[in-house]
This record gives sequence, C-alpha cells and structure tokens, in this order.
Amino acid sequence: MSTARLFCFAFCLAIPAAPAAASPAPAASAERIEQRITALSAFGANPQGGVSRVAFSAADIAGREYIKGLMRDAGLEVRVDTAGNIIGRRAGSDRSLPVIMLGSHIDSVPQGGNYDGDVGVIGAIEVVQLLHENGIATRHPLEIVSFTDEEGGTVGSRAMTSAVETTALDVVSHNGKTLREGIRAVGGDPDRLDKARRKPGELKAFIELHIEQGATLDESGIDIGVVEGIVGIRWWDVIVDGVANHAGTTPMDRRQDALVSAARLALAVNGVAIRVPGRHVATVGRIHAEPGAPNVIPGRVVMSLEIRDLDDAQMQHIFEAIQAEAREIASARKTPISFKEIDMALEPAPTDERMRRIIAESANSLGLTHKSMPSGAGHDSQEMTRIAPTGMIFVPSVGGISHAPKEFTSPADMANGVNVLMRTVLAIDRGALF
Amino acid sequence: MSTARLFCFAFCLAIPAAPAAASPAPAASAERIEQRITALSAFGANPQGGVSRVAFSAADIAGREYIKGLMRDAGLEVRVDTAGNIIGRRAGSDRSLPVIMLGSHIDSVPQGGNYDGDVGVIGAIEVVQLLHENGIATRHPLEIVSFTDEEGGTVGSRAMTSAVETTALDVVSHNGKTLREGIRAVGGDPDRLDKARRKPGELKAFIELHIEQGATLDESGIDIGVVEGIVGIRWWDVIVDGVANHAGTTPMDRRQDALVSAARLALAVNGVAIRVPGRHVATVGRIHAEPGAPNVIPGRVVMSLEIRDLDDAQMQHIFEAIQAEAREIASARKTPISFKEIDMALEPAPTDERMRRIIAESANSLGLTHKSMPSGAGHDSQEMTRIAPTGMIFVPSVGGISHAPKEFTSPADMANGVNVLMRTVLAIDRGALF
Repeated sequence: MSTARLFCFAFCLAIPAAPAAASPAPAASAERIEQRITALSAFGANPQGGVSRVAFSAADIAGREYIKGLMRDAGLEVRVDTAGNIIGRRAGSDRSLPVIMLGSHIDSVPQGGNYDGDVGVIGAIEVVQLLHENGIATRHPLEIVSFTDEEGGTVGSRAMTSAVETTALDVVSHNGKTLREGIRAVGGDPDRLDKARRKPGELKAFIELHIEQGATLDESGIDIGVVEGIVGIRWWDVIVDGVANHAGTTPMDRRQDALVSAARLALAVNGVAIRVPGRHVATVGRIHAEPGAPNVIPGRVVMSLEIRDLDDAQMQHIFEAIQAEAREIASARKTPISFKEIDMALEPAPTDERMRRIIAESANSLGLTHKSMPSGAGHDSQEMTRIAPTGMIFVPSVGGISHAPKEFTSPADMANGVNVLMRTVLAIDRGALF
Repeated sequence: MSTARLFCFAFCLAIPAAPAAASPAPAASAERIEQRITALSAFGANPQGGVSRVAFSAADIAGREYIKGLMRDAGLEVRVDTAGNIIGRRAGSDRSLPVIMLGSHIDSVPQGGNYDGDVGVIGAIEVVQLLHENGIATRHPLEIVSFTDEEGGTVGSRAMTSAVETTALDVVSHNGKTLREGIRAVGGDPDRLDKARRKPGELKAFIELHIEQGATLDESGIDIGVVEGIVGIRWWDVIVDGVANHAGTTPMDRRQDALVSAARLALAVNGVAIRVPGRHVATVGRIHAEPGAPNVIPGRVVMSLEIRDLDDAQMQHIFEAIQAEAREIASARKTPISFKEIDMALEPAPTDERMRRIIAESANSLGLTHKSMPSGAGHDSQEMTRIAPTGMIFVPSVGGISHAPKEFTSPADMANGVNVLMRTVLAIDRGALF
C-alpha cells in the first residue's frame, strides 16, 4: 500500500478533502486497460477472437467474479443488488452528497466482441483505481456499476430505474434461463427487485464510457464522441396479404403475390429513409413468406420495420411517409398491408445538456478532438436518464464493427476515453453540474 | 350379375371381341362419381371440408382399401406392386397386346381438397365399371392404377418408370415415415422396388384424368383441357450477400443491406417473367434474411427461385434475363448475388401428340369444347411419359383452387372428363394410336 493510499485511508473518509480542483487528474494506463480487457476476454472466448458471454452463462458468472476482484483491488466495497447489478462503492468526503455513478456492462451478445460494455466497466474501474492509487478523494461517493444483462434488454438498469413487471421475469434470456432464474444465478433476488431501484436525487450523475457502434469517429479520425442522446426505437410487424396459389399453374397476370408487394415495400422503406433529410434510420431486418415453399406463391409476408431517431416527431414523420407508400402498393397490387406496432417502443433519451458540456470541456482540456453524435444503439444510459443527469462518452471503434468478434478499439483510444471520464467525474465532483 | 356381364364373362376373355368401333361408349354416371368422391372424402376429412390424407397415413391406408373395393366391384383383379401402387387389371381379348393404363392418385397434400388425384382414380374406375356393366370387352388389357404418394414427389410412378436410388427411400414423407417405412405400410416391398418397374413396350398408353390447377378452363367456360405436357421445373437458391450491421448505428448511406438488394431482385424476377412473352412462370416463394432480427441490417438473404415452362430453352432464356438483372443489382449495390441450382430439375414432359389428337377428337364426338394447355403442376403423367405414350385430360376446377379444402369440380364436369377418358381408351383400343 503506498503512502498516498495510507494517507487517504486515514483521512479521506474522515475529513472533507480539499476542493477537487486542486487535485491533478492522474492519467490512465493504456497498458493496464488493455491487459484487463484481454483478461476479461478469456471468459467466454470464442474461436473467432471475440466472446460469447451472454448474461447468466457460466462465462458471465466467471467474468463477474473477475470484475468484483478488480473492484476490490481498486478499494471499492462490492455488493450485488437484487437485480444482480455489481456495484462497487467508494465513499465520498461529504456524507450528505449524492452518488456519482459510472459504469456499463460485461455481458455480450452471442458471438460478440471484447469491447462493447467492457470498456465502460474496465474504464470506470481504472478511474477509481487511479484515484485510489493517487490518494485523491472526492466529495461525492462514487459507485462503479456493472449492469446485469444489458444485451437482453438493459435488464439491470431497468430494474434500477423503474418498476419491472413480474411477467417480464418469465422472459427467456440468451442463455436459455428465464430472467428470474438468471438474476438468481448471479446473486440477485428477483422476488425483491424493487430493492434495486434508486430514487431520483440519490444519484448526482451517471456517466457511461462506451465504444461507438458505427464508424463515425473512426472514419473521421475524431477522438471522442459526446453523445447527444440515445435514439428512440419503434418496431412494427408489417403484414402483407396476398393470395397463396400454385406457382406452376397460376399465370403471372393472375397473381396477388404478397412477396412482390413486400419487396416493393422494403424498397419504399429504404427509399423514404434515404430521401427524407435527417439522421434517422429505417430497417427491414426480418422477412418471412407464408407458406414459404419454392413452389407456392406467397399468400402472406410478415416483415419487421424499425425506425430510430433522436426525435419522436421525426420517427412519426418517417413512419407516415412509409405508410403512404404502403397504401399505394396495397391498392395497386390488391394486397392489403397492415402495420402492427410492437409494444416495445423506446422513447428517445436525450443526455443532459450540462453533462455534454462537461464532457466536451474535459476532452478540450486533454487536447482531444470531439464531436456531438447520437447513439443509434440502446444502452444502460438510456434507462439512467430517467433518474439522473446522464452523460455518455464514445471512443472510436475500428470500422464501426459492433456485436461481432472483430470489434476493436485501440488501447490509446480507450485511455483517451478513460481520461475524459476521469475529468468529467472530477468536474462534477467539483460542482460543474449546475 | 347382368346378362351382359355373364355374356362377357363367358366370351370376352376367350374370343377376340368385335372391333371396339362397334361398341357404343356408355355414358358416365355423374351421380355415381359424385357419390364416390364424397365417400372417399370421408377418409382423412378435415374440418375445412377437404382432406388431409397424406400418403402412408391411417386415412390413406383406409382410403386405399375403399379404392381396392371399388376396383373389385368393377371386376378388376387387384394387386399392390412393390412400390405400393394399387393396380386393378382387366384382361383384354388379345393376350398379345400391351396394357392401356389409366389412373391417378388418392393421397393428398396436408390440408388438401377432395378432387386432386381422386377424380382420376374414381374416373378410371368408372370407365372400367361401365365397360364391365355393359359387357364391353377391349382387345388390350386395361389397368387402373392408384399411384403411391404422388404429393410426396410422384413416388409410385417414379418407381414404375425409373430406377429409384436407395437413398431416396430414407426421405421422410409428409406423414413422418420414411418412404421405406411408408411403402412397407401400404403393402409394398421397398427392398424389391425394381419389381415395380414397367418396361417401355409393356404399356400401350397411359392416360390420366385430373382437375386443372389454374382457373383456365373454369374462367373461360371450356369443358376439357387437352394437356400439351407437364412443364419443366428448375429451382435455385439465390444468395444475396451484404454486410450485417447494427440497424441503429449504421447510417443509411453506409449500408450494404442484403434485403434491399433481394427486394430489387424479387421485383426483377417478377418483371422479367411478365415482360418476356410466353407461358412460363417465375416465382420467389421462400425468403430468409440473416441474422433475421429487426435491429440488424441483413447480411445475407437466401431466397428461392423457381422457373417453369414447357420448353427448356425458354426456361434458360428467362433465367439468363434474371441473371443479367442480378448482376446489375449486385454491382450497383455492392452485394454479390449467386445462383445455386437445386438438383431436382424436372425436364418438360410433353404428352404424346397422337394422344392429344385422340383426346380432342373424343371431346368433339361428345360435343364438348376443349383447348390445349400446359400443366403447370407436376403429375404422375410426367413420369409415365418416360415409358408410354401419355395423354392427360383436364376438367375445370372452380376458381382454379388447388391443394386446398375448397377445391371443387362439378359432377357434370367430372362426368364429361370420364366420358372423354372412356372414348379415348376405346379409340386407342381400336387402334387410333398409330
């Protein structure tokens, strides 16, 4: 234990620290971050070089133990809340102040990569470890969180921020366990999930460091993304009804082929999304023709429609433009088209404007380039905006590869992100969030 | 037993009958045909009013017993060949002459109707029963066949006409049994399948009466279709390769969306088929996007392509036109497209020209309207063209409904078909097939 740490141990909890403005912000160790990312990648390593560490799997459980160990090494008091979120706490010098929370998740999608989520957890631990090693106290308590099952639908952060319906616990996770079973397997208590909730006011701020999931930063050579918010998502099942018939005996001019109409509609979705100005996206990712035999004209096609944007009105505008095209196709081809919205819409979750400013200033102070950008993907931050001023820091991902074994962020870029995270935490601690 | 039948019993087998030209052709009983169609529909009746009498099911086995009973009542000697085909034989007056065979099948698709196949078997039995009742002998032996598992891939007629590979017997039928098990269950002997083969020359002719499977006759009010042949079929798996990516984080202008390209190609298939003159059809009946999640841009789409025509060259021409469009789409959108032909091509099977003429003349002699038409669907006749001059007679199907519970052909139309079948058989017996 270094003298500085001994000093801190003796004093930091007992007496208010000097104003943090006086503390130098220690620099992240790119080497240590990289070494820990590599160590974490052993849990659930897949042959393609990524990980399959879906929540609640043996790999996830082992990875969680590794993270708990790192937290303890960084001087944190570790607990698991009833939702299975791992929380490492470092006391602040002023017991009256709310928590500054930072973190992300370590579960992956099946056949995922080594950076999505992991950088945010390892990076948050690096921040606290540096404070710990350098004997730097903060006025606010700090909590590092590794959320449960982000890839299964931000399960842990949802539990922390809102009432989760009991029926949701019966949903089967990537691992095959129900959420109920999974949460229990990682040390949570699904029957007391409400105990995981944090009230507005309990948290001073939440900050998440994450790799970008497009190639925006990577391709433009910019160091840091200041996330404007997490886009809203709306999903529909689109049903195209034609007339199933024998593909051999029904002449071309007597067909009401649902797939031909669906193809037109898929092109219309793409065309509308490209034509209308904005940063929205619209995607048909799933398509199924019924009965689905090579020798039967499809009588019905069901396909997915997803629209994302930071702005609710823009999503609605795009949807209405697609609907208008659908009406034309349906009427011209005598194949009715209906849209059934799936009840899982996520509202756009803008980050806190002040947090964006603090992150941008932190990057400036480090001489790093930065740009404002939306997050097209969902994140735990999206949930956290409900209960705390939330900020999100992106670092470049080579080629924008995401949810795949080839995800890669350089050690230097990770260290940049951690340094911005560090300065953001310290600035908030100093009172920058006003 | 009527006097006529007694007379026939005594003489027909012993002495050459008078030239059949002298025999009046007895008229079919629409009532009896309808009654038997109804009786047969009880085996495997489904709640929608059709039948699910897939080959080798309990319903199929019971239906087969009903058919054997009808054959015996019509004076036929009934056997089951090693492929499970039910064959009812009536001797001819000239032992040196080859067999005139007629028939179809009684197995259905799952959720099928009451006419597809059934009309051809019940109709053929009606012909022989009328000859039997009216004491009319034929010079040629007559055989009525009810083929095994037509809907599973013309199993019985394939066994009758060509060597079936042993591996084909491991294919699982609609019923869940392997063909080997199924053939055994209906009294065949899969280990001696070659014994079911008939040599070219053994059959004078094969004739199948069947409902049309489009609405050509029904909509134009024509009584009889003279089938020009069974169209050839070629199948491909079409693979469109794009780049799978996050649907939220990948801007519209950075996508290589395999589904957008596949949609263009599906429209191109339809467009080519409509634009190029001819009676061909081209269909995309199955489509699958990978990974197939609403929030992932499809990285690959696999879809089926089927082309049918009576002419090999026309099929190739259509395919090449589609390929040309695919090359343009692939290159414009950077999504390679490949065509993998499925090894199940069926060559066009033209019927015998002389048979068409005889069928047309038979219709004329009855004052029935008729037209030449291709069969877009496969039939046992397709196999039979390999070993015998083959003819096929279509009767109208209301609305062209096929392979569905709502199939319907009126008793009068069925009787017309049987009368044409009767006159065709008698004409061939008289020597019209020269």
